[in-house]
Amino acid sequence: MALCVDLNSDMAEGFGAYKMGDDAAMLSIVSSANIACGLHGGDPEIMAATFALAKERGVAVGAHPGFPDLWGFGRRNIPFSAGEIERLVAYQIGAAQALSAYAGHPITHVKAHGALGNLTQQDETVARAVNNAIKAVDPNLICLTIALGHQERQARDMGLSVRSEIFADRAYTDEGYLVHRSIAGAVIHDAAEAAARTARMVRDGAIETITGKRIETSIESICVHSDTPSAVAIARTVRDGLEAAGIVVRNFI
Amino acid sequence: MALCVDLNSDMAEGFGAYKMGDDAAMLSIVSSANIACGLHGGDPEIMAATFALAKERGVAVGAHPGFPDLWGFGRRNIPFSAGEIERLVAYQIGAAQALSAYAGHPITHVKAHGALGNLTQQDETVARAVNNAIKAVDPNLICLTIALGHQERQARDMGLSVRSEIFADRAYTDEGYLVHRSIAGAVIHDAAEAAARTARMVRDGAIETITGKRIETSIESICVHSDTPSAVAIARTVRDGLEAAGIVVRNFI
Amino acid sequence: MALCVDLNSDMAEGFGAYKMGDDAAMLSIVSSANIACGLHGGDPEIMAATFALAKERGVAVGAHPGFPDLWGFGRRNIPFSAGEIERLVAYQIGAAQALSAYAGHPITHVKAHGALGNLTQQDETVARAVNNAIKAVDPNLICLTIALGHQERQARDMGLSVRSEIFADRAYTDEGYLVHRSIAGAVIHDAAEAAARTARMVRDGAIETITGKRIETSIESICVHSDTPSAVAIARTVRDGLEAAGIVVRNFI
Amino acid sequence: MALCVDLNSDMAEGFGAYKMGDDAAMLSIVSSANIACGLHGGDPEIMAATFALAKERGVAVGAHPGFPDLWGFGRRNIPFSAGEIERLVAYQIGAAQALSAYAGHPITHVKAHGALGNLTQQDETVARAVNNAIKAVDPNLICLTIALGHQERQARDMGLSVRSEIFADRAYTDEGYLVHRSIAGAVIHDAAEAAARTARMVRDGAIETITGKRIETSIESICVHSDTPSAVAIARTVRDGLEAAGIVVRNFI
Repeated sequence: MALCVDLNSDMAEGFGAYKMGDDAAMLSIVSSANIACGLHGGDPEIMAATFALAKERGVAVGAHPGFPDLWGFGRRNIPFSAGEIERLVAYQIGAAQALSAYAGHPITHVKAHGALGNLTQQDETVARAVNNAIKAVDPNLICLTIALGHQERQARDMGLSVRSEIFADRAYTDEGYLVHRSIAGAVIHDAAEAAARTARMVRDGAIETITGKRIETSIESICVHSDTPSAVAIARTVRDGLEAAGIVVRNFI
Repeated sequence: MALCVDLNSDMAEGFGAYKMGDDAAMLSIVSSANIACGLHGGDPEIMAATFALAKERGVAVGAHPGFPDLWGFGRRNIPFSAGEIERLVAYQIGAAQALSAYAGHPITHVKAHGALGNLTQQDETVARAVNNAIKAVDPNLICLTIALGHQERQARDMGLSVRSEIFADRAYTDEGYLVHRSIAGAVIHDAAEAAARTARMVRDGAIETITGKRIETSIESICVHSDTPSAVAIARTVRDGLEAAGIVVRNFI
Repeated sequence: MALCVDLNSDMAEGFGAYKMGDDAAMLSIVSSANIACGLHGGDPEIMAATFALAKERGVAVGAHPGFPDLWGFGRRNIPFSAGEIERLVAYQIGAAQALSAYAGHPITHVKAHGALGNLTQQDETVARAVNNAIKAVDPNLICLTIALGHQERQARDMGLSVRSEIFADRAYTDEGYLVHRSIAGAVIHDAAEAAARTARMVRDGAIETITGKRIETSIESICVHSDTPSAVAIARTVRDGLEAAGIVVRNFI
Repeated sequence: MALCVDLNSDMAEGFGAYKMGDDAAMLSIVSSANIACGLHGGDPEIMAATFALAKERGVAVGAHPGFPDLWGFGRRNIPFSAGEIERLVAYQIGAAQALSAYAGHPITHVKAHGALGNLTQQDETVARAVNNAIKAVDPNLICLTIALGHQERQARDMGLSVRSEIFADRAYTDEGYLVHRSIAGAVIHDAAEAAARTARMVRDGAIETITGKRIETSIESICVHSDTPSAVAIARTVRDGLEAAGIVVRNFI
């Protein structure tokens, strides 16, 4: 039986007249799309249109809640309490559920965005807040988490369905965190190298760290970025690399 | 068997540190609350807190979507296409569904706010857009409409559950529209008069117009305002007047 | 003595992570830049950076106030009273003055954006509101207006300095208004044709209408768009066409 | 010659339909008003109206820039770089300059709001950023600072005009910082006590700390809050207390 993995990317992150990434191209490559919910990016128009296009392409969809920070594109740590994060995330999941139902293609997962996403891996309280929101709104929604973090562990403890992702083009520390972008080697710019390494990690069921260590862990999805000029080319190369290695790209539902 | 009518009011229309109306007091008087959804007023915090308080008080709750216009409090006609209105309303219904589920008190109706609400009565295209959004997101949600308008007729044609409201303190034209606020007599400032007239209209099953005409129509709910200094006193007087006339105040679910 | 004309374009219309147009390329072509002020687009970062780059390139700068409507990019008619428009425009002029002073390159003109700009040509009340704001904040600021409209006439009557612009790539009605985009021929897609026609209108001191009529009028500036994929190429062709016709491109200060 | 001190308060912090505090009442008590600039609160309408009313009452006015965080009312630390803070503050000073000129009552000082204000006292980098913005936009504007902080020292070093304020109703640590609100005694709830203590500190030219220590420092202004239910009564009591102690309340221009 073939080894399978999901390929996911963030989408619908434009706002009004503003574009962000090439969603149409990415939807021909990935198997899951995380749809922005209007607070760090996205608006009802682009959300509904992207849900509809994902349906056409057979791409699974999820809510992609972030901090309410359009100016900062959800990449800044805005100081919210755990309770506030629960409500913020619940709000956004609901908006995505409604617009995905409207488009005839209901969401099946939730993945936190940007600064909020990073905190779910590293901050136990934030991780619990996001998981609480998912559980309260719809416990059948799959929790798509960064591998090896607090959200992953807690979501399992809480009985949520969990799928874990690794990044195709980011180096890992020996603790399983992303190497900070300010450090040399943090981002793997060579698409072919990113693809080969990704295929290897999926095959091995382990993350390779920047020092060459291996950390065994569940890997059900690969995250590729969508908002850089080379994003489409990298995503395509990663997908081709997975398939060349005999791995089937398929969503995790 | 006693005659029943619902008493509804808009709520959760504050934003962050900003207050609007006295929701706690109103929740002791009304039987249904229309909860703002964050675009013309409201935020996840006040939404969740108001859903929770409404549950405690046994008050039914609905989504109260408006134009995305915090500055104008949803009272200005922002030019949106019918399709854009569908998506805007769907988005807000979803957010309200999620936060009401989070608070353990799911919404059962939808009522459009401010300028959007007025358009649903008078503009066929906008009426259809709001109804389409309700139908697409959850056809079991009750459509709470202004009596005698396009939304009411269309919602029935579309097979949605409909409840119609009249205003306790606003005069009506012979066409069944609200008399414009700029015209003398448009607003009934005397609470006792508003209460007596409201009870009469409910008893008669007919709207009284400013010229003394009667227009027979379904009246399942009375709308009382929540955002003026005298709102709580007026609402209390209207409720007392209904009860003194032997009418039971009860939500329409 | 050589015939001179200004070439102007809108800039700094991105927001946070969102890009809009290629300001750096446009600043090598135009002689005046209209800088968005944060309400329909733009933020303090991009405003300050664009003022600084314009200074480096010797490009004159102005405030480009619009409706407070980031979602609609200032292209929708939001219903504001004349007084509200005065205050909205004053606010934005002030923000642009401060950031241009900060960047060492003070603004010298004001040009209204999008829907607000169109209204200044066609609606006497809005025209007066924008002119009142300019006069109240700094009567030395030049009023850059669409040729043949209410703002132009009123600004002269009010004693403001006025410069009038025509569009390089838009057809005109016999009344001197822009032909609506929904009508065939409204937009001149051929850059060479746009360039030739623009040079002819500057030489003649007259607008050519879609029926071939000529309307004599002052033409001190040519507006080229900045927010379409072909904007830079068109602007370059228009500038080359003007220079080939012996017209010097130079700001109007 | 009489001892003088200024009494200042934040104003124009409403937004659209949302009210915050009773500006009209406060303008009959204070001698200086800090006008919100639209990013943490305030909009062009309330700004212009408050400048006009302050002029009528003879109250001096200043810009009151804050973090762009309407939801959090400027009370949260949003992570901005020093350069971003410079541009944010410059933007807001400009907007206030323009609307105060429009109202015929130009601003004469700048005071940072909420979380930004606290950082100017405690964080050297933020203090410098705010001072740099003032200096770049208009070095004649007076820098109204919290006594004993980084902004005060740096503003003097930079050659800016400085006036320092103390809080009428807040206790101080021995380091001259505000005692955190979570600590007993941090807020002086008794208006008479706040008034007496304020008069004493002005007379002595020294802050009294929570342990009874005295810290000598310049005190040119007293800050009274405007956004609590008892704000007007407290401000009135503080003013009466100062006058009863023979201190003249007068702005610091």
